[in-house]
This record gives sequence, structure tokens and C-alpha cells, in this order.
Amino acid sequence: MQQPDAALLATSTPEERLAAEGIVLPRAPGPLGAYRPWVIVGSLLMTSGQFPWREGKLAYTGRIGSSVSPRDAYAACRLAAINAIAQIKDAVGDLGRIKQIARIEGTMQVATGFRDHPKALDGASDLINSVFGEAGRHSRMLYTNTEMPLDTPVLLVVLAEIHG
Amino acid sequence: MQQPDAALLATSTPEERLAAEGIVLPRAPGPLGAYRPWVIVGSLLMTSGQFPWREGKLAYTGRIGSSVSPRDAYAACRLAAINAIAQIKDAVGDLGRIKQIARIEGTMQVATGFRDHPKALDGASDLINSVFGEAGRHSRMLYTNTEMPLDTPVLLVVLAEIHG
Amino acid sequence: MQQPDAALLATSTPEERLAAEGIVLPRAPGPLGAYRPWVIVGSLLMTSGQFPWREGKLAYTGRIGSSVSPRDAYAACRLAAINAIAQIKDAVGDLGRIKQIARIEGTMQVATGFRDHPKALDGASDLINSVFGEAGRHSRMLYTNTEMPLDTPVLLVVLAEIHG
Repeated sequence: MQQPDAALLATSTPEERLAAEGIVLPRAPGPLGAYRPWVIVGSLLMTSGQFPWREGKLAYTGRIGSSVSPRDAYAACRLAAINAIAQIKDAVGDLGRIKQIARIEGTMQVATGFRDHPKALDGASDLINSVFGEAGRHSRMLYTNTEMPLDTPVLLVVLAEIHG
Repeated sequence: MQQPDAALLATSTPEERLAAEGIVLPRAPGPLGAYRPWVIVGSLLMTSGQFPWREGKLAYTGRIGSSVSPRDAYAACRLAAINAIAQIKDAVGDLGRIKQIARIEGTMQVATGFRDHPKALDGASDLINSVFGEAGRHSRMLYTNTEMPLDTPVLLVVLAEIHG
Repeated sequence: MQQPDAALLATSTPEERLAAEGIVLPRAPGPLGAYRPWVIVGSLLMTSGQFPWREGKLAYTGRIGSSVSPRDAYAACRLAAINAIAQIKDAVGDLGRIKQIARIEGTMQVATGFRDHPKALDGASDLINSVFGEAGRHSRMLYTNTEMPLDTPVLLVVLAEIHG
């Protein structure tokens, strides 16, 4: 993918790139049950499923392709990625400790016949690529859930490798 | 989460805590196809999808929120977790070799409109937290399948880190 | 599982076994969005979701159990596994560098009431077992998606451990 400014990416930090995009990371959100929002195994950091929280409320609810437009689905995936980055920062402190974003797994609640979920998930991928640059170039998988907790249109899992 | 007896947790083994809960681990169940029930990669142990087997039969079948009550869904997740612990014990022999339960992934078969699956999955989380104590504090993700093999209401995957 | 010729498996390479099955690996297919087809974390190689591509086109589309027969579903899973092996070869060059295939995750688009997806997924498992022999004996998980990108009946994820 094209990056807007390769020189900037090479010299700036993920935190600076977040600021350049006007993104203020929220507090890492708590879980919806008897589990933790993230765990580290060796050098691998795994988040639990992240919702599109904004200021303590779900910014989007519903089914992608009916009550949630493709444009809002893209935005919801981007917002869930912001929450995932907040978890990662909570786990490692300094985002410069991330060697690479290894994987994004997007799970979506879609309407019958809606097949453009990969474009929606690009909302998460584009942000991760933009914030982490070359270190953000992740693998990906897409799932759908028939019904979602809190009627969220998306749950996002991010796996990241931490520098040894 | 609150643990009933922190002193007990600090000194007892997972096997002792299973016994204290009255749980006798079954034999590790075999697979439903040409695969293995668990694999170890480095220090990471991954189970295949675990069913709620009891004495060689599925103790629960059907769709959560219609033929399977929320209470039975919780019990099915707990039972699938018992089967997962049996796989882990088959893999490592002594559960004290588990450094941490890193992740639970619950995949459920739910009725239209049923959104309380996180509470059902707590059936697995609560048991893992209780048996493994601090080492059981896992990350989590929830999926739904439209149709399940053998009509099981849940398939449970557990990832665990083994002491080096 | 039974292998047709244990002596052959012990002495031949995965590439030789592919040739013996008459399989010519395709070029590793590109992604459907802003992500990479595979990533390596430490010794763990993860593919993104692999489609049943044949010569640049999806060889199978539709819903397993209605427009896609069980036999074609098995073939689609086998073909997706061939594409996954192409990704693995793109990542490591020589398939002999694979210590083990750790996991297959099959995600399927199935018709209402269709429950024989484990047999379909054996199309991937049988091939991996045949090509990688003892090193192919993987764990497995099965998901369903309500709707699939490009109407594919299956997306296949493969995790492999690379020799250190």
C-alpha cells in the first residue's frame, strides 16, 4: 500500500503518527466478563475482542449492510482499532516496543447478502498501516457472528509482536 | 475477580482445586476428523475445538437462547472447559507446568436475537479462573457458528503457555 | 491416520510428495485488502484467510449443503490448502524448513441445517497430512461465516512452526 510520507514514517513514532491523525487514545476499555483485555505470551501480545467504544459508549450498533452503512462499518472498524491500540499501549507502555502488528482478526455482524466486509475491515487495516508504518503490515482474517454482544457491528482482535 | 480463598489458591495445585470442585477429569476426547486434539508450538499449547462431552456423549445439544437455556449454556461452556483441561493435562502431564492460560475462544450456536453469550462463556472463564488462579487470567474472544457439528451449542479453544 | 507408504514419507520432501500427488503449486495469491497474505512471529508462520483459487479464479462459490455439494466442499478445502501451502512456500522457500503444521482453521459458508462441515474440512487436513507426513499432524478449529467475501464456500487459515 502507498504511504503518504515515507520519510515521516521512518523517523516518527506511532504516538506521533496518532497525534498527526488527530487521535487521542482512550483509556484501555475493560472486559465484558471474567477475562482480561490482553495477555502476553513470550513476545506475542493478544487482545481480547475490541468494541468500537467512544467515550464509554458504543459509537455504532447494528448490522452492517442494513442498519449500519458500509461507510459507518469502515469507521467502526477504525474505532475498534483505536481501542485495540489503547490496549496495546496499556500492555507495553511505549508503542515503539511493538516490533510488528502480526494480525488483525475482524468479526462482523452483517446483513444477509452483504459481502463487502473486507472493505469495512480496511478501516482497521488502513489505520494500523498508517500508525505503525512498515511494522504495521499485518496478516488478517475475517469472521462473522450471527449475533453480537451489545449489538456491536464489529469485534476486533489484534496480535502484536513485542521487541525482545 | 474475587477468589473464594486466596491463601488456598496460592498453595494448592490445579489438580487439588479440581478435586475441591468435585471435578474428575475425563480421558482427553479424540478428534472428529483427520486432526489432533492439541499441538504445542514452542511454549504455546493450542487445543482444537472442545465439545461439552460427558462420559462419551454430548451433554448438551441445540441452540442457545431457544432449545438451550442460558443456564445450560453456562454449564455447557464449563463442561467444554473441563474437556479442554483434560487435553491440557494429556499434553503436559502435570497442570503445574502451565505458566498461564493465555486465551479462551468460545464459538457458540445461538438463536436469533440472543446476545447474552458473554455470560454463557463465563462458564468456561469462571472455571479456568477458579482452577488456575492468577495463572488462569486469560484473554478471550467470542464467535458464533450458524450450524455446529453434532449440534453442539459450543466449541471451546484454549491456548496455554507452558513453563520453559 | 494411515499413510500409504511410511518409508516414502520418511525419505521424501514435501515438494516431492506434492509432485507425487500431481499438484503444481500456484503463485502465492495476493490479499483482498490492505493486509499481507502471511506473517512470521518468532518461529510461527500465520497465513491470512486463503481462498480456493485456481488459475486466478475462484474454483468454487456458494453455500455448502445447497449450491455446493459435500464432495465439492471437500475439494474446495483441499484447493484452499494448496493455496495455503503456496503461501508457506513463498514465506520460507523450502517446505523442509517447516517443523510442523500446527493448526488449520476452516471457516465455511454453510446452508441451514448442514452439519457435515468437519468432513469437508478433512479435504484440507488429508492433504496437509499427506504432504507433510508426521510434521503435518495439526490441531484444528471450524467456524462458519454467514456471508463470505466473493461468495467463497471456505476460507482457510494455516499456522506453521518453522525450524529454528
